[in-house]
Amino acid sequence: MVISAMGKETDQLLRLAGRISSAPPGREMDMLITAGERKAVALMCMALAEMGVPAHSFTGSQAGFLTDTNHENAKILEIRPERIRQALSEGIVPVVAGSQGVSTDRNVTFLGRGGSDTTAVALAHALGAEMCELYTDVSGVFSADPRVVPSATKMSSISFDELLEMTATGCPKPAMRSVEVAHNHRVPLHIRSAFTWEPGTLVVEDPLAAETATNAAQSQQESDMERPIIRAVTHDQSESKVTVVDVPDKPGVSAVLFRALADEGVNVDMIVQNVSEEGCTDISFTVPTEDLGRAEAVLRDGVMDRLGARSMLADESIGKVSVIGAGMKSNPGVAATMFETLADNHINIEMISTSAIRISCVVHTDKTEEAVQHLHTAFGLDG
Amino acid sequence: MVISAMGKETDQLLRLAGRISSAPPGREMDMLITAGERKAVALMCMALAEMGVPAHSFTGSQAGFLTDTNHENAKILEIRPERIRQALSEGIVPVVAGSQGVSTDRNVTFLGRGGSDTTAVALAHALGAEMCELYTDVSGVFSADPRVVPSATKMSSISFDELLEMTATGCPKPAMRSVEVAHNHRVPLHIRSAFTWEPGTLVVEDPLAAETATNAAQSQQESDMERPIIRAVTHDQSESKVTVVDVPDKPGVSAVLFRALADEGVNVDMIVQNVSEEGCTDISFTVPTEDLGRAEAVLRDGVMDRLGARSMLADESIGKVSVIGAGMKSNPGVAATMFETLADNHINIEMISTSAIRISCVVHTDKTEEAVQHLHTAFGLDG
Repeated sequence: MVISAMGKETDQLLRLAGRISSAPPGREMDMLITAGERKAVALMCMALAEMGVPAHSFTGSQAGFLTDTNHENAKILEIRPERIRQALSEGIVPVVAGSQGVSTDRNVTFLGRGGSDTTAVALAHALGAEMCELYTDVSGVFSADPRVVPSATKMSSISFDELLEMTATGCPKPAMRSVEVAHNHRVPLHIRSAFTWEPGTLVVEDPLAAETATNAAQSQQESDMERPIIRAVTHDQSESKVTVVDVPDKPGVSAVLFRALADEGVNVDMIVQNVSEEGCTDISFTVPTEDLGRAEAVLRDGVMDRLGARSMLADESIGKVSVIGAGMKSNPGVAATMFETLADNHINIEMISTSAIRISCVVHTDKTEEAVQHLHTAFGLDG
Repeated sequence: MVISAMGKETDQLLRLAGRISSAPPGREMDMLITAGERKAVALMCMALAEMGVPAHSFTGSQAGFLTDTNHENAKILEIRPERIRQALSEGIVPVVAGSQGVSTDRNVTFLGRGGSDTTAVALAHALGAEMCELYTDVSGVFSADPRVVPSATKMSSISFDELLEMTATGCPKPAMRSVEVAHNHRVPLHIRSAFTWEPGTLVVEDPLAAETATNAAQSQQESDMERPIIRAVTHDQSESKVTVVDVPDKPGVSAVLFRALADEGVNVDMIVQNVSEEGCTDISFTVPTEDLGRAEAVLRDGVMDRLGARSMLADESIGKVSVIGAGMKSNPGVAATMFETLADNHINIEMISTSAIRISCVVHTDKTEEAVQHLHTAFGLDG
């Protein structure tokens, strides 16, 4: 069992630190924040003991999580789960503190927000587990956010790459990083409710085979072999758009821009660049709105000058809507249908980006949910 | 066995038709072109009979391929392979004509160029085969085109979604459509040489598990669990870029543009749109250079006027370079490294597009191969 801190504990610890220092040392922040999971694992083991279930708590370090030295956002390098294996072989439930480890220079590290899912998936892989069950506040992965689209349906199964594109484009659970680890190391997931025992969504290699013969996707597959299979409509209103206007169209511009942002830890999502005709180009990208201030500061403090850019536009009022599914590459009608559906509903498209299994459009934030609803219907996903 | 027409036969048939008519009816074109595969299957069965191997030839229709009615580019709707199963049960090798079927209105249809791979993959799925072996003129899938990067290595295995992004971004074999069918229906592939018996590349669910413990990706995985795993650098010089300049930034613009192109069967690849500040936007997209004339005609014949666009730019001198691999979403450094590598080598980026497992840059066609070489080295792929 891997657990995260209780309720709002991590937020409270961050606030505590904020009262003492505006720029606390990363090493001490990680020492502080990881205390949240430490409390949780100890309390969980006590609760289990009360129920007569033998259980041992383990910090990230005790569980064998070796990380790099990036405090507050460490990455897992390796897992040596000898003590976990030992506990399991003795019939003791190991309860592991999520989102933490010990760095190569032997300091306590925090993996970042949402890191417990990543801990769980990585540990499942290290132990060679059959499956990793992620218990969340939703009952599975849906064809769209059920709060926005009441007719959204829970998928009984989904493939790793579809879930990767979905989480990359706004599906909130599970955390993106944990999906990347599951995808790269092929760890089967079961995403399910923490409150009921109903089956959730299986993330597996072959979602069609995992579904029953009564399933709609299966019957569609048999009757229309090459038809694109649109699986979900996702949306994300947590990002802002930045456009760097009229930068000279010459080598090195993107390198300067995105290295500067990467060095500040700004996680750039969508990047689009196209040419205009007078030797200048605009570069647009999206960043989490919480990183927007830092992104703007990076640009203003030298990058704009180095690039010779004319101006910079920032827009917080955006939402990204994406349609996910394979087969669209050979079917140009999918993109046209998406654009027409938005146009028919008077929704303007501000940015477009495509991949082999996804088309994303940036629209005004006020239009985002409406866009999701219409697209869910247009692609026949209403349950 | 599924086979395509011999050598340049399809080209010759197209030329023959061109001498008689500048716009031959689609129904008759398909009747003509599918004769190429018909000859090939009959000759193959004769050759097998000479070797003492009992074999029966089957047209697409006889093999049970039901398609839609789009002549010259039909899509498979359903396969009813009863006669193939019967032959197999009798110990007779069925030799099926690739890239053809019978439409719902009972005419002969052609699936398009490269359709034989699609026939093979779809038939493998319909028969519940363990694997579909695709015999080509290369010995497998490489980390980059070996003609461009001599140190490119053959992958022993690759996942469906990685191969899908690779073929979508220029990896020439197997054909994109066949990979989409394999991806959607999870048909394991073995891409191998038609000239030798050396093992090729397995396309499977879990490429890492399929590789041996001595493999570099495996050892990297164990020592750096969350590191992005860059698998390949692809490139594509067969496309051209079109930019529609200064279209009013209002709903419906993309819908009009891409529906018009879809209706003409122009297969749009990359689409990028970003905003400029005065209520106008530029939309850039790439199309196969062979479709460029048609795309320009569609735009000139009404679409530009309907959009109120200022001008249109077309550029045939482009190449697209892509880096494929999972984990880059949580690692902003991957994009920065790609842009820096290009900048350090004085290669200008004209267009950028990103997905969860890919970053693509459009560069000048003359710089494409150089870009591939430097990126292959920068991401540690040199064998």
